[in-house]
Amino acid sequence: MAEGRPEPVERLVEELAKLPGVGRRTAERLADHLVRAPKGEAMGLALAIRDVKKSVGPCSACGNFSETDPCAICADGRRDRARICVVSSVKDLLAIERAGVWRGLYHVLDGRVAPLEGVGPDDLRLGALAERVKAGGVAEVVLATDSDAEGDMTAMHAARVLKDAGVRITRLSRGLPSGSSVEFASPATLGEAMEGRKDV
Amino acid sequence: MAEGRPEPVERLVEELAKLPGVGRRTAERLADHLVRAPKGEAMGLALAIRDVKKSVGPCSACGNFSETDPCAICADGRRDRARICVVSSVKDLLAIERAGVWRGLYHVLDGRVAPLEGVGPDDLRLGALAERVKAGGVAEVVLATDSDAEGDMTAMHAARVLKDAGVRITRLSRGLPSGSSVEFASPATLGEAMEGRKDV
Repeated sequence: MAEGRPEPVERLVEELAKLPGVGRRTAERLADHLVRAPKGEAMGLALAIRDVKKSVGPCSACGNFSETDPCAICADGRRDRARICVVSSVKDLLAIERAGVWRGLYHVLDGRVAPLEGVGPDDLRLGALAERVKAGGVAEVVLATDSDAEGDMTAMHAARVLKDAGVRITRLSRGLPSGSSVEFASPATLGEAMEGRKDV
Repeated sequence: MAEGRPEPVERLVEELAKLPGVGRRTAERLADHLVRAPKGEAMGLALAIRDVKKSVGPCSACGNFSETDPCAICADGRRDRARICVVSSVKDLLAIERAGVWRGLYHVLDGRVAPLEGVGPDDLRLGALAERVKAGGVAEVVLATDSDAEGDMTAMHAARVLKDAGVRITRLSRGLPSGSSVEFASPATLGEAMEGRKDV
């Protein structure tokens, strides 16, 4: 039913529909909102996008989003430079930073292996990871990918790329999440918690 | 407002209010329902309770609920009798059985240490656990308690009771639950997943 939309609005719909999780319908709704919105509001969004693109980019070392290059984490002399935590996305990096559980550096892969979506290992920043590690000074690489099929595949490919680098390769542990009950754990989680059981 | 209730109904309310999670209000609602319900329905419940009490009891070995003693699990010759999985409740036992991740026996503690609720280690079946293990033939005891403060305390007390028994004592692993994402894991879970990270 979009045949009546002026061409610039149609183009806006198409651009909005490229956003993750935004379908054609949502894009049309957002576009119509922007058409009707006060000019200040719509331009506020446009300028914010432009400013982000102008001033924020990926850190050339780790891939974190930053206004500086290298990013504040990579530039921080108190961080343990011998340890690299490999994450799929900047969101995951931020979750780990918020948790305050990592004092090493990061490497953002910019994705995870997802064959059904046509994402293969070559689409990730695995080559850059291998180069970083081969440059030396790295003792351990933690593969902090999701605990699902795609996370498993991504970790597998990362481990393969690092196989001959002579560094310790680890992965986040699986099991009961903190503060949870045995009764309501999924069968798969119970299986991993049993399999990975630890000496007391 | 229960002053108008006949004494037998009042007694039923009090009995119902002893059920876990049933407050005075809910108990009154249930009691009123039973008063109004056809005799067959109300008696069906009464008889079901009586039958359960007559025919089902705790297994004298593991504490599982069973119509037989020992229970079907303890009597199953294909189970690994050298390994005992310690759980807080029959519900936890059933969750692990449903998951199909354990081929040993169980020991139900009938509770967890909860100082705020006045539940101490002496209220649990820890003595029976120690006796079972000391009787011999046990190689490993897995402490499958919840991953919260009470589960931790319960596991600690169980480990203490078994300290000199010369058996391997393990605990369910902590970390990312199966099929979950790093981005949405709690800080505590990320901390445990990082701390417990495993070599690939």
